Amino acid sequence: MRIAIDAMGGDHAPELIVQGAIEAAREWPDTRLLLVGREDEVKAYLKGESLPNLEIIHADEIIESDEEPVKAVRRKKNASMVVAARLVREGNADALLSAGNTGALMTAGLLIIGRMEGIERPALAPMLPTMDDGGMLALDLGANMDAKPEHLLQYAIMGSIYREKVHGIAGPRVGLLNVGTEPMKGNEMSKAAFELLQAAPVHFVGNVEARDVLERPCDVLVCDGFAGNILLKAMEGTAGPLMKELRKAFTRSWLTKLAGAIMMPGLRQLRNKMDYKHHGGAPLLGLNSLVVKCHGSSDAMAVKNAVRQARIAMETQLIETIAKEISGK
Amino acid sequence: MRIAIDAMGGDHAPELIVQGAIEAAREWPDTRLLLVGREDEVKAYLKGESLPNLEIIHADEIIESDEEPVKAVRRKKNASMVVAARLVREGNADALLSAGNTGALMTAGLLIIGRMEGIERPALAPMLPTMDDGGMLALDLGANMDAKPEHLLQYAIMGSIYREKVHGIAGPRVGLLNVGTEPMKGNEMSKAAFELLQAAPVHFVGNVEARDVLERPCDVLVCDGFAGNILLKAMEGTAGPLMKELRKAFTRSWLTKLAGAIMMPGLRQLRNKMDYKHHGGAPLLGLNSLVVKCHGSSDAMAVKNAVRQARIAMETQLIETIAKEISGK
Repeated sequence: MRIAIDAMGGDHAPELIVQGAIEAAREWPDTRLLLVGREDEVKAYLKGESLPNLEIIHADEIIESDEEPVKAVRRKKNASMVVAARLVREGNADALLSAGNTGALMTAGLLIIGRMEGIERPALAPMLPTMDDGGMLALDLGANMDAKPEHLLQYAIMGSIYREKVHGIAGPRVGLLNVGTEPMKGNEMSKAAFELLQAAPVHFVGNVEARDVLERPCDVLVCDGFAGNILLKAMEGTAGPLMKELRKAFTRSWLTKLAGAIMMPGLRQLRNKMDYKHHGGAPLLGLNSLVVKCHGSSDAMAVKNAVRQARIAMETQLIETIAKEISGK
Repeated sequence: MRIAIDAMGGDHAPELIVQGAIEAAREWPDTRLLLVGREDEVKAYLKGESLPNLEIIHADEIIESDEEPVKAVRRKKNASMVVAARLVREGNADALLSAGNTGALMTAGLLIIGRMEGIERPALAPMLPTMDDGGMLALDLGANMDAKPEHLLQYAIMGSIYREKVHGIAGPRVGLLNVGTEPMKGNEMSKAAFELLQAAPVHFVGNVEARDVLERPCDVLVCDGFAGNILLKAMEGTAGPLMKELRKAFTRSWLTKLAGAIMMPGLRQLRNKMDYKHHGGAPLLGLNSLVVKCHGSSDAMAVKNAVRQARIAMETQLIETIAKEISGK
């Protein structure tokens, strides 16, 4: 197993990406890690560490987080992310991990690694937090803004296989993000998707409302990229300010500070619940090889977890299974 | 001014609806309130109270909250909501308030009171909570599931006029709910709406992301009913469980209970921030007369506030101004 890691993408790149790669290389000696980025910088963070399964592949350009994705991928032929994607396309690596520009990674996946045959639109599939910490795979959360019902059907199939293979969930429950739980609710797209999902080879449990998401009403939530993005950001945009106000409330007087000290462990637990980072990276499903988008703020632990995730996906033949299921339609 | 009030709609109907009407009738002797519902029940809650400007209009049917809207409005000709809407259509009342079935109220508005000339789709426009308590009018949040860019343009115009007239905000800022702040972000619909809004006679401030909504980035947020519903319910579905978990964390031991006692005022304040009920009812904009949807859990205070809101809208000639602006296009 060979995994190409974009060493230059993410808020803490290359330092924590390199550190995470070192930890992963130590943990899994059978996995070859290719750190793609500026050789001198990556080397500096390796701090003389030499592991037989950790290699540097030089790439001198970097795609920044605010760059226009398509332009960046087309122009920066020597960007770490682009070089890493080429390693996968040319058969020199089996999977690609990056904490860099999400749009650029989707573009590199599409243009360089390529769409799986039979898949119309690949999907970005992060785990959403749930109150019971189980989490829920949601797709698509931003790869495809104008989804058709047929795309949602493919998301359901790919998401179900992912949950089975990577998370070991047998017969994962698939829900459709909608404005009500009754079958005929929604817009034209969601109504048509509902009908397709009912006839699909997945365990479809019906419509799911945005207000119930934290209670984990399903294991795989399908939605168009626009609505999915609104859902995810509304959740972040509510939890964040609420926790901030709460912190403020705890600092108002010495008495509330005392209360804050007492409540510290409970509050930390609550904050962790809402932190979707600890669920690992988001796979980009529907490409010819495995591509995992790690959170922009990934630290060493997140990188190591993403390697673990990629290893499981490869061991369980995730991509091959999806390809077989899709081509069988 | 005559306001028809659906006495039988809402979780606390008719008791708290009647009580709210009594308080409103006392406060504003110049406003005639028509309580529409089962005469004997309404009378019982009037408890012998007799006010010259408070009248009962008998209607013996009730539309329940889980009934299919169109069917219910068509079949139950004698439902309190339907009779109240007829009072408005026939010129016996100037506005309609209801805390009942939202879909049925929209249907009654469309079928009985009628769409304003030039308006393609009326919009449900509740206030969303914001951290600074100012609130933000959002439309459409559920009246129209398959919105076109032109509908969003009309929402922007109607919402701006509402904020100016009813809330006294000069030149209210209009934002477009989208997946990113850059102009070319989004799906086909939002991109086309962006262009229309840029050329519109409103103070358009650009795209607004779901994660920023609580910070009040604008005074009027326009969106299609599907995305708007996802936004609203994701906010509710995050704040609710978080506050619940927090309450749980405070009850774990005598020490955390002590902390809870200390924090009580701060927590109550936080909960109130997220409670969009205190912003009054949601107008249904784009109809021939004023229709206000009060929250299902409305108490007497909420009903009284909705009467206040309706009075301001009528005093400032909200409907006439919208009609003029729309017909002028």
